[in-house]
Amino acid sequence: MQIDGSNVRAMAVGCSILGAGGGGDTAIGVLAALQAIEEFGPVPVVDLDDLDDEALVMPCGGIGAPLIWIEKIDRGDEIARLIPVVERIHGASVAALMSAEIGGSNGLAPVAWAARAGLPLVDADGMGRAFPEVPQVTMEVAGISPNPAVMTDERGNVVIFEGVDGQWMERMERAMAVEFGGQGYSSEYQMTVLQAKTATVRRTVTLAVRLGEVVFGAEGDPIEALAEEVAAAVLIEGKIVDVERRVTGGFVRGSVTIDGLGADSGRVLRLEIQNENLVALDEGEVLAMVPDIITVLDTQTARAVHTERLSYGQRVSVVAFPCDPIWRTERGLELAGPRAFGYDLDYVPVEAIHS
Amino acid sequence: MQIDGSNVRAMAVGCSILGAGGGGDTAIGVLAALQAIEEFGPVPVVDLDDLDDEALVMPCGGIGAPLIWIEKIDRGDEIARLIPVVERIHGASVAALMSAEIGGSNGLAPVAWAARAGLPLVDADGMGRAFPEVPQVTMEVAGISPNPAVMTDERGNVVIFEGVDGQWMERMERAMAVEFGGQGYSSEYQMTVLQAKTATVRRTVTLAVRLGEVVFGAEGDPIEALAEEVAAAVLIEGKIVDVERRVTGGFVRGSVTIDGLGADSGRVLRLEIQNENLVALDEGEVLAMVPDIITVLDTQTARAVHTERLSYGQRVSVVAFPCDPIWRTERGLELAGPRAFGYDLDYVPVEAIHS
Repeated sequence: MQIDGSNVRAMAVGCSILGAGGGGDTAIGVLAALQAIEEFGPVPVVDLDDLDDEALVMPCGGIGAPLIWIEKIDRGDEIARLIPVVERIHGASVAALMSAEIGGSNGLAPVAWAARAGLPLVDADGMGRAFPEVPQVTMEVAGISPNPAVMTDERGNVVIFEGVDGQWMERMERAMAVEFGGQGYSSEYQMTVLQAKTATVRRTVTLAVRLGEVVFGAEGDPIEALAEEVAAAVLIEGKIVDVERRVTGGFVRGSVTIDGLGADSGRVLRLEIQNENLVALDEGEVLAMVPDIITVLDTQTARAVHTERLSYGQRVSVVAFPCDPIWRTERGLELAGPRAFGYDLDYVPVEAIHS
Repeated sequence: MQIDGSNVRAMAVGCSILGAGGGGDTAIGVLAALQAIEEFGPVPVVDLDDLDDEALVMPCGGIGAPLIWIEKIDRGDEIARLIPVVERIHGASVAALMSAEIGGSNGLAPVAWAARAGLPLVDADGMGRAFPEVPQVTMEVAGISPNPAVMTDERGNVVIFEGVDGQWMERMERAMAVEFGGQGYSSEYQMTVLQAKTATVRRTVTLAVRLGEVVFGAEGDPIEALAEEVAAAVLIEGKIVDVERRVTGGFVRGSVTIDGLGADSGRVLRLEIQNENLVALDEGEVLAMVPDIITVLDTQTARAVHTERLSYGQRVSVVAFPCDPIWRTERGLELAGPRAFGYDLDYVPVEAIHS
């Protein structure tokens, strides 16, 4: 498989759905990917099984508040600048790029970066969704070191982090992203293909493309088609009646209220957000919670509405579907369960709530 | 010459005087230096003329708000951790450490670091005083690159900066220092001895020791003895009646009002501060301005009072004396003249104002 002009839009739609509201709007990412593909050619998507076990995989992504990405776009050469830095430090060539998070723009952006660098894109990522913080990746769950991490901005400033644990990497990279104007580009948790085989969520690039194609190709209700594909529960169909959102410390935080329409008339759903949709509540009853994937979809088109695009009056359907099993392990929940985000909730899998 | 138990206190007093109120209180630095000297032996102070021209000089210092240093002390091994990083990047051994700024604690701290590392201390520094910002060093005036810069904290986090200009180095290191809790340790502008010969303020370590010895050895008024040694004007003798000071973004900022006593009775001096004493005003008339060195001294002891220690009721004398000539060049004033700090003043040398 390759990403080219024929499927990049489907991938973008799929990345947004997997993003749980986060990872950033893909509109600019589609344009960047199309331009890079036109200039440098299609991007091969390779399965980890087809790479040499000792080869070096370089995860990459943007870090900052997704809201910023709408206006502060990248130059395009940020990751290209970091590749030789990573190669110099590791003393090895980078064999393939990988999306640190498949969700949202961060899932899509590596297409343009890989095209430009002449590298394939690994069919895997570090989340299977989007998460707000640097160590909230499956590589951290698997015990891979985030060091050396490398970071840059559109000006050419390069920062290398060494000897930093996941939590401090988050603090330090976040502070740097804020100083850069709310956004930077980084790579952490570089690893061998052998490590990546058990430390990533696999085949999420092909999944993203497939989800986009399901939405595009649906003959009936696209939300129904999508829900069937990912085994999602539809939590509510309704209208956004309130959005409370602020950008603080490199995050988008807030909550959203959705009044039910049609069969859901009279119900009220509240979503708690921190870059991503974290908890869905109906009269205090939890309908779904992180790390499961809660996504707000436009009711007509089944396109995901990112948290920074939520606004009063939108007709939306909220779906929730299971995260990768690695997030349901003890260490996974410690890193990215409800309590990691400050919610005093025992995690219950979404399919158990809606069985 | 060497720094040992016999002269470290004199050096501390001299560093504080040269600090223009900044560079941090030396009380903890004296203890750290004494302990390191006891454990690792005295520190040789070497003139640049006595080192090999190609040898590598590593400037180093703390970065952050001096106020923080009073309570948040270092582990002691911060610079020792950075030396091998600098050596690995340069592919060369560090031949000697150098104080990035001779003023205050930052002038004294390298004594402990050099003792611990078994390295000599260069008899020079990058300011001849203290300044608040990273690129306000004579190496920047001389066109030396601040890259690679390295930075660490007491936890062992290491950050390397590449491709960063002086102004962005300031922003990025400052953001990191704030994230570290208000303070970090860093090295920028590493250079060869040959470069250092024209890119530093020379013989400031021996000057600091001499100033301390002048104060300690004064038979009459120590302020008079000191003023004679550095050709200082005494701007006022009086009492602090108001201190407005805040810690913001890694800086101490504010202003101080001093009412004259004795012969100065009826006069009021106002000092503008940003880590250092920047401008001294008497009824709107400028009596001295940065980059000349304005220091507040305890009237009885002639010990410098750092900006973070200024408080109501202190009996003080304010002296001002000439900075190194490199700061009076066009580039020097651009980096550290009154306008660099937001004061719309044409620089007039202190000795011209008080001739």
